[in-house]
Order: sequence, then C-alpha cells, then structure tokens
Amino acid sequence: RVFKASVGALLLFFALFVTYDEPSLPSIFPLFQDIQVMLAVGLGLLLAFLPRYGLSALAHNFLLLNFSTQWALLLQGLRHRYRHGELRLGLHNVLAAEFAAVTVLISVGAVLGRTSPCQLLTVAFCEVPVYLASEWLIVTQLGVRDVGGTITIHVFACYFGLGVSKALFGTQRRPAHPKETPTPRSDLLALVGTLTLWVFWPSFVAAPCRPGDAQRRAILNTLLALSASAVTTVVASSLLESGGKLSPGHLQNGSLAGGVAIGALADVPITPAASLALGSLSSLVCLLGFRFLTPLLARRLALHDHCGIHNLHGLPGILGAAASAVADQGGCGGCRQALWQVAGLAVALGGSLLSGMLAGAVLRLPCLAPPPEPLCFEDSLNFRIQGQAESPGMGDTTEEVALKERV
Amino acid sequence: RVFKASVGALLLFFALFVTYDEPSLPSIFPLFQDIQVMLAVGLGLLLAFLPRYGLSALAHNFLLLNFSTQWALLLQGLRHRYRHGELRLGLHNVLAAEFAAVTVLISVGAVLGRTSPCQLLTVAFCEVPVYLASEWLIVTQLGVRDVGGTITIHVFACYFGLGVSKALFGTQRRPAHPKETPTPRSDLLALVGTLTLWVFWPSFVAAPCRPGDAQRRAILNTLLALSASAVTTVVASSLLESGGKLSPGHLQNGSLAGGVAIGALADVPITPAASLALGSLSSLVCLLGFRFLTPLLARRLALHDHCGIHNLHGLPGILGAAASAVADQGGCGGCRQALWQVAGLAVALGGSLLSGMLAGAVLRLPCLAPPPEPLCFEDSLNFRIQGQAESPGMGDTTEEVALKERV
Amino acid sequence: RVFKASVGALLLFFALFVTYDEPSLPSIFPLFQDIQVMLAVGLGLLLAFLPRYGLSALAHNFLLLNFSTQWALLLQGLRHRYRHGELRLGLHNVLAAEFAAVTVLISVGAVLGRTSPCQLLTVAFCEVPVYLASEWLIVTQLGVRDVGGTITIHVFACYFGLGVSKALFGTQRRPAHPKETPTPRSDLLALVGTLTLWVFWPSFVAAPCRPGDAQRRAILNTLLALSASAVTTVVASSLLESGGKLSPGHLQNGSLAGGVAIGALADVPITPAASLALGSLSSLVCLLGFRFLTPLLARRLALHDHCGIHNLHGLPGILGAAASAVADQGGCGGCRQALWQVAGLAVALGGSLLSGMLAGAVLRLPCLAPPPEPLCFEDSLNFRIQGQAESPGMGDTTEEVALKERV
Repeated sequence: RVFKASVGALLLFFALFVTYDEPSLPSIFPLFQDIQVMLAVGLGLLLAFLPRYGLSALAHNFLLLNFSTQWALLLQGLRHRYRHGELRLGLHNVLAAEFAAVTVLISVGAVLGRTSPCQLLTVAFCEVPVYLASEWLIVTQLGVRDVGGTITIHVFACYFGLGVSKALFGTQRRPAHPKETPTPRSDLLALVGTLTLWVFWPSFVAAPCRPGDAQRRAILNTLLALSASAVTTVVASSLLESGGKLSPGHLQNGSLAGGVAIGALADVPITPAASLALGSLSSLVCLLGFRFLTPLLARRLALHDHCGIHNLHGLPGILGAAASAVADQGGCGGCRQALWQVAGLAVALGGSLLSGMLAGAVLRLPCLAPPPEPLCFEDSLNFRIQGQAESPGMGDTTEEVALKERV
Repeated sequence: RVFKASVGALLLFFALFVTYDEPSLPSIFPLFQDIQVMLAVGLGLLLAFLPRYGLSALAHNFLLLNFSTQWALLLQGLRHRYRHGELRLGLHNVLAAEFAAVTVLISVGAVLGRTSPCQLLTVAFCEVPVYLASEWLIVTQLGVRDVGGTITIHVFACYFGLGVSKALFGTQRRPAHPKETPTPRSDLLALVGTLTLWVFWPSFVAAPCRPGDAQRRAILNTLLALSASAVTTVVASSLLESGGKLSPGHLQNGSLAGGVAIGALADVPITPAASLALGSLSSLVCLLGFRFLTPLLARRLALHDHCGIHNLHGLPGILGAAASAVADQGGCGGCRQALWQVAGLAVALGGSLLSGMLAGAVLRLPCLAPPPEPLCFEDSLNFRIQGQAESPGMGDTTEEVALKERV
Repeated sequence: RVFKASVGALLLFFALFVTYDEPSLPSIFPLFQDIQVMLAVGLGLLLAFLPRYGLSALAHNFLLLNFSTQWALLLQGLRHRYRHGELRLGLHNVLAAEFAAVTVLISVGAVLGRTSPCQLLTVAFCEVPVYLASEWLIVTQLGVRDVGGTITIHVFACYFGLGVSKALFGTQRRPAHPKETPTPRSDLLALVGTLTLWVFWPSFVAAPCRPGDAQRRAILNTLLALSASAVTTVVASSLLESGGKLSPGHLQNGSLAGGVAIGALADVPITPAASLALGSLSSLVCLLGFRFLTPLLARRLALHDHCGIHNLHGLPGILGAAASAVADQGGCGGCRQALWQVAGLAVALGGSLLSGMLAGAVLRLPCLAPPPEPLCFEDSLNFRIQGQAESPGMGDTTEEVALKERV
C-alpha cells in the first residue's frame, strides 16, 4: 500500500524534527475550530451531493484533510530545520498546514467519483509541496496581498485540479453517468454543507489577519460579500433556469462565490458597497460559468470538472484578483502593487496548471489502479455495505463480484 | 421581478451611505458566529420537517436571512444618516440587523409551504421597518428590559406572522395537505435543527448583553431554562400522547420554549430555580398549545399556523414577558418597571397583529402570484429537480406541466 | 412515572440550594459551546447509525444529557452546601456536571435500542453519583493526572456500561436483530456525527486546563493524536476488510480513538511524535477490538455491546492510561506518579464494573418494563409516527397494535 508507507514515513520524520512552540496563547483557537468545521463537516457535506457516493465523499475528504495537513507540517518543519534549526510547533503552523490541505480538497473536486483513494493520496503528495513553494513565491517574494487565499489557494487549487483532470482523463469524452444525478435528499445535505461553509467563511478569511482593524475589516467585508452572493444567486438562478425555478447546484456554489473573490482584498479599506458589488458579481460569474462555460469546456476540451470547481474557485478567484489589483491601485499603493497582484495571479495560474498536469500524468501509473467505470460514483466501491440486498439499487452485485478482485 | 429590483436598489443605497466603523474589536465575533449557525443552519433544518419541502425551506430561510439583514442595515443607515450623519458599519450593526431578520424568519413559519418567494420577500420588506420602529419604541422609549428579545422579537414576530396568515388565507379552511405529514427522516433532520438552536441559544441571549456579570447571568439562566425545557418536554409529551410515546413535533419545539421565555429576564439576578421553573412552564405551555389551542384556532378562526409559531414563540413569549414583570417588580425596581414590561408586551402584540394583517393584505395583490394548491409543500415548485422520474412520487408530472406556465 | 417525580424533585432541590456564582468571566464559554455541540449534536448523530432508531437515539441522548447534568449539578450543590455552605453556580460547575453526563451518554451505548426511557433514566440516576465519587477519589485523593478524562470518564463509563449490559441481559445470547444493520444513509449521518466530535474534541480536552501553556499543549497534542487516528483508521480498516474496502463503523469510531487515549497526558510536555504514535496505536487497538474482541466477548461472555463502546472508550482508555504512566515516569515526576496513574485506572475499572452490574440489576425491576423484543431498534416504539402506512416498512403494525398496551 502506498499510503501505509506514507503514514509510517510521516511518523518517522515527525520523531526526528518537530517539537512544540513555547510561548503564544491560542487566541486564534476559536477561528481555528471554525475552519476545522468548514473543512471536515461543511466541505464534506457539500461534496456529498452524489446520492450514492456520500460516504465516500465525506471519508475521502476527511482522509485527505488529515494526510495533507500532516504532510504540509512535515515539509514546513523540514524547511525550517534547514534554515533556522528545530521547528517549535504552534497552532499557527497547523493553520498554515491546513491551508495547504484546502488546496488538495478543492482540487480533487474535479475528479470526484472516478478516482481511487491511492490516486487521491498521490494528488495530495504532489500538490502540497508545489502549493508551499507557490505560496512562498507569491506572498513572500512578490509581496502579493492575499489574506483570504483568493490567488494562492482558490485559483491555484482550481487550475491544479483541472490540470490533473485533463492529464488523467485525456481527450476521451465521458457520457454523464446515471449515478451522477443528485436527488432532492442529497441536494439537501449538500446545501447544509454550503450553509456551514457560508457561516464560517469570515473566520477563514480573518484567521491569518493580524488582530485589530485589518481583522475587523476582513470579517465585515467577507460578511457583506457572502450576503450579496446569497441574494444574487437566488435571483440569477431563477432567471437562468426555465420557469423561474432554482437549480440546487447553483445555490450550493453561487452562495459561496463572494467568499472566494473577497479574499484578496478583504483587509483593504474598501467601502461596503464595493464588497457587496464584488459578492454579487462573483456569484453571477459563477452561475454563468455553470450554465455556459462548463458545457463548452466539456464539449471542446473534453474537460471533466465534476464539482464545477472552475466556476466556484477559478472564475471568482480571477475576478477577486483583478479587483484586488484595481482596489490596491486606487486605494493604497500606486500601480506597483497592482502589477504584483497580476503577476501573482499569473504565477498561480500557470504554475498550478503545469504542475497539475504533471501530477495527473503520475496518476495514470498502472500501480494506482483507477476504479472500474461501472463502479464509479458508488459507495460500494470503497465501503463494505452491510445487507446490500436490503438497500434497493445499491449496485449491480454481479458486476461487483466480478470486479472485486480487480480492485 | 420584484426582488431583482430590490437587490439593485439595496446596492445603490449602500453605495450612497454606509462606510465602516473604525475602532472596536470584534469581541462578540464568536457569539455572532454562533448566531449565524443558528439562523442559517439550525432554523433552516428545523423548517425542513416537511419531507418534500426541505430544499425550499432551507433556501427560503437563507434568502430571507440575507435579504432582511441587508434591508435592516440599510434602514439603520438611513436613520442614522438623517440624525447623526454617515453610519460607520460595525459588527454590532450587523448583529442588530440580524435580529430584525430573525423576526421575518419566525413570521414566515406561519405560512410555510403555501407562499411564493416573491410573497416571502414582500413580508420581509414590510416587517423589517415595522420591527425597527417597534423595537425603538419598546426598548428605547419605554425602557423595557428585553435582552433576549422575548417581547421585541418573539412575540412581535409571532403575531405579525399570524396576522399575515389570517389576512392572506382569509376565512377558508384548508384541509391538511397529505404532503404536510413529516416522515421519520425529515423529523430527524428537523430535530438536528432543534439541537443546533438549543446549543447556541445562550449565545443569542448573551450577545446583546454588556460583557461581565449581566452576560454571565444571561448565559447561565438561559442554559438552565433550556435544560428544564428539554426534560419537561419529554415528560409532558409522553403524558399528552397515547401510549406514552413522544411526538417529534413536541420535541422539536418544546425544547426551545425555555429559551424564548427566559429572554426578557435573562440578565436579571433571579435564582437558578426560577430559571428552571420558567423553562419547565414555558415548554408545558408550548405543548398544551400544540395539543389544544392550534386545533381550536384552526376550527374557530380558520387560522393557518403551519409551523406552530404561536406555540413556540407566542405563548412562551407572553409567559416570559409576564415573568419579567413579576421578577422586576420583586427584584430590582418597584412597580414601575413591571408596568413598562406589560406596556411593551401590549405594544408588541397589538402593533404586530395590525401591521401583519396589513402586510397579509398586500400579499393578496395579483402580481404576487401564490403557488397553485396542488404544488404546495413541493420542492419541485421552486427547484429544478433532475431526473424526477427516478425519485419516486416527486409530484404529479402532468399537473405540473399544466401548471408550469402559471408559475 | 419515575421521571416525572425526578423532575419535580430536581426543581425542589434547586429551589433550596443553588444561587449564582458572582465573579469570574466566562472565558471558557466558547469551549463550553463546542462541548455542547459535541454532546447534543455530534454524539446524537453518531448514535443515529441505526436506520430506524435515529429519532430515538437523538432524543434519548438529549434527554439523558439534560437530566444527568441537572442531577450532577444538584449533587455537587448538596455536597458543597454540606461542606462549605451555599453553592454559587458558575459555568465551571455546569461544565463539571456535563462531564458527569458524558459518562452516562457513553455507558448507555452498550444497551442502545433494547432499553426504555425509564431504564435509561435509572442508569443516569445510578451512574452520576458513582462517577462523582470515583472522580473525587481518583483526581482529588490519588492525584491522578487526567485532564481529558481518559480514566475518569472514558474507562469508567465504558466498564459501567458493560456492567449494566451484562447484568441486564444475563447469559442469554441475542441473535443480531435484522433492524440493527445500518444503511448507507444512516451511516452517512453517523459519520457526520463523528466528524463533529472529531472537530471539537480539542475543546473537550482543553476546557478543564488552566489557560496558558498547559492548555496550548492539550490542544496541539489532541489535534495531532486525532489526525493520526484518522489516517491510521482508513489504512487499518482497508487492511482488515476484504477487498481493501472500508467499514463505515471503523471510520466512525476509530477516528476518535486518539482523542480518548490522549486525554490522560494531553497537558504533559510530550513530543508531537509521541502524540501521533499514541493516536495511531489507539485507533489500531480500536479496530482490532471491533474485528476480533467484540465477537469473542459476545460468544464467550454473551456480552452485548451494541455501539462498541469497549472498542472506542475501553481499550483506547486503558492504552492512554498506560501511556500516561510511562510518560509521567519519564517526563516529570519519578515512579510515584506512574503508580498513581495505574492505581487510578484500577479504581476506575473495578469500581465502574461493580457499580454498573448493580445498576444493571436494578434495571431488571419489573416496574421498569423493557421494550418487547420485536419493537427493539424501532422509532415507533418511542415516537408517534404520523401516517405510518406511507413510510414503507415502518414496523409490523399488527404486532405493534397487540403490544401497545404492554408498553
């Protein structure tokens, strides 16, 4: 097992390096807990929109969150040891490692349901170091302002995930799998996930801020952007769909677009109206992406993006980065900062797409067996379901029996 | 679309007025987040007790929360500008605006499932300014003590909602819709909503308190009242129902009645036994309301109260207001304060019933088309459900096709 | 009704004793709220893994949480009054009472689904005073270090519950009930419960610590142990099950084993590697328990442990206690502390098993009628389910009608 070895190795390395940080009170602990709820519960439920793949979505999300956090902690420790000696572990290190894990959780949304746990762990193994390097380059070297991770997390994770998807699935067009259709019940759970993410998003943006004015601004800007997103999503979805109805998928994603976009300028002193406008605009962009761009990319580029991460993370991320360039130019620092913001966006975009495609090529290695097509989007692929005969339609048992040995 | 224009107008007004508040640290931020969880997740799930209307209940609750908060923020800003110049936005303003939104979320419980989104937004549009005026009159002018919003929020919202229901549905008695019956699964989700509200209720009551003794008292009083409510509800429900069984609806509502009632005297130094007694009594009143009063009102007044808001918010609210009059009289201030408490209750009750009936009359305008009766309590009325044939019994497709144009 | 009288008695006693504590700011309030979420929502959902018993599991958990907390508060107050005069109630008292309630919630997991509410309340009535005495003996008298309750809560509660189960069900072997099999949907809800517990576990361990270094260490140690548990559980489950699949039950329990084990040494300055190793080891022990020990105990001792509390609380608890003896010996205090840790474990184990068997014998009293076997694991035993004909397979109505009088 690939991941068995990983766990052992992680433990070994931790034994060599890491001890605890001494001073500092956990004043960010409440924010940290909020972020943990977002990642473990909120994001997990949002990914559980597939009616027969809910357990797998929750479990894979949970596994990747933990594996990636530990892996990022270890890499941080290695780098720190090399430069400054032993790392003293503190809550802020764990938080930084969780941000690395977020990129993995976002990226794998593009290939949800068609990948094995080993493949997912390989994505995490590849993506975390690239993220750490990219974040160092963009924030520390270029001085890009991005407190909420619009560029370093959302744009990076999105194009990394699309790169993986493209390289993994190649040019073959997959027809929509009948098990991909959400039911009202799975849509309801996913909406609960969205609401959980929506509620705690201000904590996600505020946690890396210095306490004080910047943090306060970050909270209010994010609140307003998210609130505008929610209202705009309902209005826009009812206009985009026939008969004035809403699409559950629109609601699940569009309500969060404002949080993605505001991250790059949350701590900048912009007006409330600007936050609201950015929130509205980003959810509009997100919904238009779902309605027009995703089908187009699937048809032209055979690009598989199952959760629509391009619409929730890519497009609003680019919009937010552009807004941060404009806002910085006007607000505080001359053209220079605006250029750096654009440069940061370009680095995140290009670097992630390239490295994502490389990671996707690694996933095609024969030792990382992908799940067989008839078992995609099925919990029974990953879980021992008791009494399958009782739960109707829990997978074609004959097929499964035949395929079990291959898995 | 009515609400499209509203969004545009809100944004425009925000651009004219509101800027951010400068000093003040967000020390109430953890309480604020707790309240956000209550309103977006807890209340949404509680309203999802209808098995086929869960998505709509969650989504409408979310839409109204955001629209009402923005609308209340704007009205606060307008009033502040008129009197003191530009408003500087802070977290306490957002919190005050959310309290206005709570009244809308409670009120629409009376007409859940039989109203269109446009009608719901109209309720929010009407109720928020009336609430702000009523709250100003009761708290600022009359000096009523009501830290947890027993009178200003719960009693007000309840009778506003009943007024809307009465004026909207008139004297016609509607037979119980077959889709109104909860299933064990939808009852389970609603109970999770109740538990979420129950857990965070102390934050709701403590947030408006000054930090220190009053806040500490508010937390402990609310904890005890809620705890007594929970135990009493189980006991009383098993005595009211045949065979010693519990009613899920009793549990979902009665457990929260103590939180409603304690609000008006949470920060008053009463004994723990008084908190427990008030919690017990209020859940008893709530359950008796469900068992006897709701059927009576439906028969005599043809009053439609789908979520039983009269039992959860009206009766315990009146009980709490009465208790606050007695407690204040004995505890700290002579008869005067007791009279003001009663006066405040009368203002909230009368004002809300009257304005609610006016708002209900507005809802009968032909431009706000109500949903056709066969599609009531159906998610397919508001949502594009994919692959409806697969989810058994998801609505009579023939009826729907015929009715789609009318919606 | 037994519990009707209990409620009245509780209220009466509270009136005699308890008033509020004066000074002290609620700085532990955020941690307290996290723990409330764990107990009311997280644990409730985790117990809802039975597809037809979800409402009952949530409701019984909620009832026991409140009843036990009030009962523990009262006993604390009685003891305090006897020794120091009137108790002034503060949030830390409520927290201590909730820890007593946790033991009840854990213990009843062994007899979930085969017990009536009256029996469960009797368990709470017996267990709370024994816990308080045991906790006083172990922590105050023996000076055992156990900030996270590994010994005083988890080990105690586990063997108390097993004692109850053994004495209640005797030597008869019950065949696995067909309604005991979880479905993917109920497993999903239970996994959400696990994730909720997992996220907030650090607050549970940190709440009793003094703020400062010890608290910070407790948070980080718990985070690392839980993270290692999560990864190890997935790896170990896929190795234990055929075909590399995961067992939902393993994931639901194993992910939390690290939190149980780390409690006894969370505030001790151990290395991060030690936390990770303890977390890994404890989840391994938990899974091996599920795979081999539970079937063995059921066959040899006819021991009924429905939720597997021995695997989640017993084995990792003993492991954690052993680790705390070793760590204390090496780290800070000579052999003496190590001996006390072992002595504390022995006291918790022996005392709980003995008192649990006594409590189980009380449960066999004829006045506490157990539910009839065909209605076990059925919500319709405890709840009035509306329109049962509509929800397919909601229990054999003929049997129920015949049995209703007996219940």
